[in-house]
Amino acid sequence: MRTGQTHLFIPGPTNVPEAVRQAMNVPMQDMRAADFGDLTLGLFEGMKSVLRTERGTVMLFPGSGTGAWEAAITNTLNPGDKVLMARHGHFSTLWAQMAERLGLQVELIDIPWGAGAPVKEIARRLGRDAHDEIKAVFVTHNETATGVASDIAAVRRALDENFHDALLFVDGVSSVGSLDFRMDEWEVDLVVTGSQKGLMLPPGLGILGVSEKALEAARSATMRRAYFEFSDMLAMNADGYFPYTPPTPLLHGLRASLARIATEGLDNVIARHTRLAEGVRRGIAAWGLPLVAEHHTLYSDTVSAIRVPQEIDAREVLRIAYEEFNTSFGSGLGPLDGKVFRIGHLGDLNEAMCLTALSVAEMALYRAGMQVQLGSGVGAAQAWFAADAAARPFLHIAAE
Amino acid sequence: MRTGQTHLFIPGPTNVPEAVRQAMNVPMQDMRAADFGDLTLGLFEGMKSVLRTERGTVMLFPGSGTGAWEAAITNTLNPGDKVLMARHGHFSTLWAQMAERLGLQVELIDIPWGAGAPVKEIARRLGRDAHDEIKAVFVTHNETATGVASDIAAVRRALDENFHDALLFVDGVSSVGSLDFRMDEWEVDLVVTGSQKGLMLPPGLGILGVSEKALEAARSATMRRAYFEFSDMLAMNADGYFPYTPPTPLLHGLRASLARIATEGLDNVIARHTRLAEGVRRGIAAWGLPLVAEHHTLYSDTVSAIRVPQEIDAREVLRIAYEEFNTSFGSGLGPLDGKVFRIGHLGDLNEAMCLTALSVAEMALYRAGMQVQLGSGVGAAQAWFAADAAARPFLHIAAE
Amino acid sequence: MRTGQTHLFIPGPTNVPEAVRQAMNVPMQDMRAADFGDLTLGLFEGMKSVLRTERGTVMLFPGSGTGAWEAAITNTLNPGDKVLMARHGHFSTLWAQMAERLGLQVELIDIPWGAGAPVKEIARRLGRDAHDEIKAVFVTHNETATGVASDIAAVRRALDENFHDALLFVDGVSSVGSLDFRMDEWEVDLVVTGSQKGLMLPPGLGILGVSEKALEAARSATMRRAYFEFSDMLAMNADGYFPYTPPTPLLHGLRASLARIATEGLDNVIARHTRLAEGVRRGIAAWGLPLVAEHHTLYSDTVSAIRVPQEIDAREVLRIAYEEFNTSFGSGLGPLDGKVFRIGHLGDLNEAMCLTALSVAEMALYRAGMQVQLGSGVGAAQAWFAADAAARPFLHIAAE
Amino acid sequence: MRTGQTHLFIPGPTNVPEAVRQAMNVPMQDMRAADFGDLTLGLFEGMKSVLRTERGTVMLFPGSGTGAWEAAITNTLNPGDKVLMARHGHFSTLWAQMAERLGLQVELIDIPWGAGAPVKEIARRLGRDAHDEIKAVFVTHNETATGVASDIAAVRRALDENFHDALLFVDGVSSVGSLDFRMDEWEVDLVVTGSQKGLMLPPGLGILGVSEKALEAARSATMRRAYFEFSDMLAMNADGYFPYTPPTPLLHGLRASLARIATEGLDNVIARHTRLAEGVRRGIAAWGLPLVAEHHTLYSDTVSAIRVPQEIDAREVLRIAYEEFNTSFGSGLGPLDGKVFRIGHLGDLNEAMCLTALSVAEMALYRAGMQVQLGSGVGAAQAWFAADAAARPFLHIAAE
Repeated sequence: MRTGQTHLFIPGPTNVPEAVRQAMNVPMQDMRAADFGDLTLGLFEGMKSVLRTERGTVMLFPGSGTGAWEAAITNTLNPGDKVLMARHGHFSTLWAQMAERLGLQVELIDIPWGAGAPVKEIARRLGRDAHDEIKAVFVTHNETATGVASDIAAVRRALDENFHDALLFVDGVSSVGSLDFRMDEWEVDLVVTGSQKGLMLPPGLGILGVSEKALEAARSATMRRAYFEFSDMLAMNADGYFPYTPPTPLLHGLRASLARIATEGLDNVIARHTRLAEGVRRGIAAWGLPLVAEHHTLYSDTVSAIRVPQEIDAREVLRIAYEEFNTSFGSGLGPLDGKVFRIGHLGDLNEAMCLTALSVAEMALYRAGMQVQLGSGVGAAQAWFAADAAARPFLHIAAE
Repeated sequence: MRTGQTHLFIPGPTNVPEAVRQAMNVPMQDMRAADFGDLTLGLFEGMKSVLRTERGTVMLFPGSGTGAWEAAITNTLNPGDKVLMARHGHFSTLWAQMAERLGLQVELIDIPWGAGAPVKEIARRLGRDAHDEIKAVFVTHNETATGVASDIAAVRRALDENFHDALLFVDGVSSVGSLDFRMDEWEVDLVVTGSQKGLMLPPGLGILGVSEKALEAARSATMRRAYFEFSDMLAMNADGYFPYTPPTPLLHGLRASLARIATEGLDNVIARHTRLAEGVRRGIAAWGLPLVAEHHTLYSDTVSAIRVPQEIDAREVLRIAYEEFNTSFGSGLGPLDGKVFRIGHLGDLNEAMCLTALSVAEMALYRAGMQVQLGSGVGAAQAWFAADAAARPFLHIAAE
Repeated sequence: MRTGQTHLFIPGPTNVPEAVRQAMNVPMQDMRAADFGDLTLGLFEGMKSVLRTERGTVMLFPGSGTGAWEAAITNTLNPGDKVLMARHGHFSTLWAQMAERLGLQVELIDIPWGAGAPVKEIARRLGRDAHDEIKAVFVTHNETATGVASDIAAVRRALDENFHDALLFVDGVSSVGSLDFRMDEWEVDLVVTGSQKGLMLPPGLGILGVSEKALEAARSATMRRAYFEFSDMLAMNADGYFPYTPPTPLLHGLRASLARIATEGLDNVIARHTRLAEGVRRGIAAWGLPLVAEHHTLYSDTVSAIRVPQEIDAREVLRIAYEEFNTSFGSGLGPLDGKVFRIGHLGDLNEAMCLTALSVAEMALYRAGMQVQLGSGVGAAQAWFAADAAARPFLHIAAE
Repeated sequence: MRTGQTHLFIPGPTNVPEAVRQAMNVPMQDMRAADFGDLTLGLFEGMKSVLRTERGTVMLFPGSGTGAWEAAITNTLNPGDKVLMARHGHFSTLWAQMAERLGLQVELIDIPWGAGAPVKEIARRLGRDAHDEIKAVFVTHNETATGVASDIAAVRRALDENFHDALLFVDGVSSVGSLDFRMDEWEVDLVVTGSQKGLMLPPGLGILGVSEKALEAARSATMRRAYFEFSDMLAMNADGYFPYTPPTPLLHGLRASLARIATEGLDNVIARHTRLAEGVRRGIAAWGLPLVAEHHTLYSDTVSAIRVPQEIDAREVLRIAYEEFNTSFGSGLGPLDGKVFRIGHLGDLNEAMCLTALSVAEMALYRAGMQVQLGSGVGAAQAWFAADAAARPFLHIAAE
């Protein structure tokens, strides 16, 4: 029988903070009550802060991030539209598949898993798109499968420098609320995320940020859609309602989660992710294992995808961690299966949790046959965390 | 400030039983874990029992019942397909709208709100459909807006007697798990429900029962779809997984809810709904108020839509109940707004809760200006419940 | 199998508000942490507000109200001390027993169950106590067994007019936080309550308010005590700690409960109890049943003890309510067993809940054989609540 | 602001398992209901299994372990009775103080903090007690302050070999449910524990195991007592009731906790504590730090008290762990303040949690100025855990 906490270090769903968990433990309520907006209206504003947008519009769809992708596409594009995107990981692959299924013409840039968004190539293709056939550029801000964070600002510059007015779609599923994301500054037109990552909630909400330009496109977009129809959602949201029954516990949770992010401060949340991720990476480096991400500028602060030595089966590392040590890491997806395991380090996290992750990973690697010095990765991370703690002032900290 | 319980008598979301609420209070977990199927695989079987199907397949989509409607349509029908349906309430109206938006040709039978599914007319239209142009018949088992339960078995007979092989779609959102529903016996091809009605869960799952014939149709159906794609869902469900992150707390809740239904016994659940609904109706009758349902054979055992006297504004009844007495009833939808209020009596319910509903409704009608004898409706219901209790043996009942 | 809510109308434990329930759902924490006082220190102040004391001291003992009684006695009195008290109900009887067990000489005034504190007789005895042998007067503010609220201010006057400086002990278990209680104004020396009544928490805390005079007495009191020692508790409480491990979930709950009382306003809480109790009493009067309380000036606003007709067994009423209608009322205690049932109407309550209680009680009386007009009691209460609602302004009410 | 889990490694309250936490999230209920025994009666039996007693009786007092101590003493001893006990830690010191306060004559054996129960000296004193003046021997099974587990079986032998029939009292607060404890085999007369240690519940229950001999003694014991009176408790417990309102959420929690212990198997629970404690001790040894316990045969498997180097202030280690790394360790109590910190390793625990504790402790020692090799302690523990895992078969483990 398992005992003790089950340690969760997957890149989502992430650990739910106690305050959020408390907030979701509610009885059912009438989603048509006169005062329902007291719960919901603030959520749109709060979510806009997390996206760093004032001009954008937020929508919350009952469903998953994948559903939000579909909403973004079907509301703003037309059948046969050409979209430009890179394929460099499991989730960008899935996104491309969806685009094709929904009838788009996908111009794919295939690059290695581990590479970042190929800005130069995107710029080149935009430059030669003389007839503005490319209606949208799709970019994965953080490839959860490879632990690669791409430079969205650079993609925006590529569009601007080519005077191209394609819509800019960003998959922010594992970045929003954790990495620096600037919807207005980067003029992102559609950004997609889910409740179960940086927002520290259970799965169940697909979340969209939509620019004015994207809303304008939605007015004439002709793809078939019903459940994900923007105009229905917006008409009801105006007064705090939804076109169908929303998952009210998650809305209560989102309120608590947004309050928590506001209290910590979004800049501090982002800085914390960087700080903790660096500790994890130092541990990995001490083992001598490479990340999938090709270059340190691409390292994701929300998830690290770690290549195991050739003679080791990463699935065995995962199995040992889970069965013997009650710890879940992310598996290697698609072609990385068996070669990679991933440590999710996003959401409601602290130093000790990162050390737990490294301790177990180290022990699992060792148990799987790797000649790793036990304590080496943990020690490297401890050194980083200790130095960091020494450098920061700690005020008296309230227990909650 | 509100004090005491908020009394919820809307036709969904319904009150969540304590055991289900406990079960949902879980930390996050890895939806790719080797043993995830231990949680999920039983859910499909349990849900099949509730649908009374052995041959059908169950799918659980993160989303709402509306999403499940879209899944049903887009996976099994083709653009331009003709579907036959009656419009006799708010939800059948919405369903027809969705069908049109998704590119179907909707042959509408407009009948009064308060009527049941027009079986004779359906039969007539099927009979004259010489070229099998009608690909599907859509029937709302329980029109939540009017409190009308329709005769699905009769619609099946209409199809059979006309040797018509259109698919039979049933909106079971406010019937499944509460009213007698027989997927196999009635050869229903697609039945749609949500988590927040008879299943006594929060909103967040759109649930589908799919016949073998419908699955066959799905193999060649050409509507665009991605999020709601059956084949992705089925491929992953086979081992207990999902194609995207499922809302795990709801899956835990569903397990508890199905266990609860199994313990009570589905037949007993249905009989209880009938018994409790009859008490509510006797109360309403004592007030001298008519139901929207045209005939007693159409009375829904899950919701009663009550016409208020002409000089009374039903919105005022709702406002008083909510603001003064912390009680939520269902509003009159669409053309019934201001003329009707609804009492939901489904899910985790007992006699005392029905009396609470009647007490408050009576008081709110009185406060809104109706000349109602206070205590009259409650008294009529009490008489029914007392007689019923006298007739049933009560064994020693465990507290849980 | 039971379905639906279990309706709880006992005079404690009372229904826990959702916000309090959420607040208690916490992981464990270190009760010696540097910031533990952030949780606890405000509780003492908040509790003082509820007791309406500025000069008094509050102590929170892990245990029950009975434990707090023992703490009050053993810390401030000496073996063989004479105490004066009336016995007029189950709880005053238990209190007298405890006093005797602990070695006090109890001067008992036996009066009928249903009478209030016999102020004149208390005054007479104090007057003739020439040698100040009476060290304490024990008064039960609200006799939970009989539904009688006594006049503590009058007892204080009896002491003052006789220039008697006996300590004034008050059993406030079912009054504090619900009825008007004024520790400073009435110069109460020791008041005892529990967490599970007007404070709307689960059982587990025995709560004491202690005057300066009582603290002074505690300095020289010689009864044996250890667990309930005031000085240990006070020494630790000064910094927010406890001499042994406190039940931290209840402390979190108490914080939420005190916040709730502060938001509603203590005066409003008390007025609400009066208003709701009056509705319940009107219902009972409509049945033609007498209360145990001898006179309307003694009616308790937290609990009504109802005499059933001679030919009816009150235990049968209780059994029917519980087994057939999932509703708990209080039983007749001691000599009232079989003759009385009690409706608790305190804590987190509203009009609809009172109507639920009356509906079920009425139905249970009827089922037990009483010739009661069904709907009569409910109707009388509705008339009161409707008139009351008409007279009060309802502002827009936030859902929480 | 704190983020992430607060890591709790104090020797109680311990971490509450999720299943127990779920079970406690209940609405209030009637503690006088006919079926209340369905909840409670099994608890006494379950608790007897944990105490390994068939002949003993279990009592559950609302309160803390300290309250249970008082119950044990006041029910079975008489004023002026002589009791024999050793003082070798904070909790044995408190126990001796309580005994004196309650009027016992305490014959103290003062031995170093870090020593175990002085069996030879106990035997010697029993041997020379010609007139059977010693009425009870008090032994602390596990001194939580020093991390010393004593040999209760040996104390029993000392009694037997001297043909002495003093009662044997055991403080099992931090041993019961975690260490091997054998009430019947060791003929323990009174064993005391609390809910918040090996039973993995929040604080709030003081738990007693009472032998037939102790019950016999209770029949004539003359100490004043009321709240803690055995006879009241036993009379009510016979049918599953309590003499005052019990903390029902904790009773629900206890049911879940006992079920959990039964599922894991008490022998397995004990073996797990040994295994995990050994890992922690290996980590400590790698730092070169001594335990307070004088000899390895005394090492407690529930808590390790660690001496820090002279130049380090243990309070600083605790402060750093708590403020910088959200981790609670136990402080050095009394004379050990500043010299010792403690790691609690009992209850619902696993390997990864032990590594978390060691990681943070190591980092905090380092930050406090100790020249510790980062990763060294963790590595030593990992080596132990990895070797242990390799030696045990892991079956497919269900997630719950």
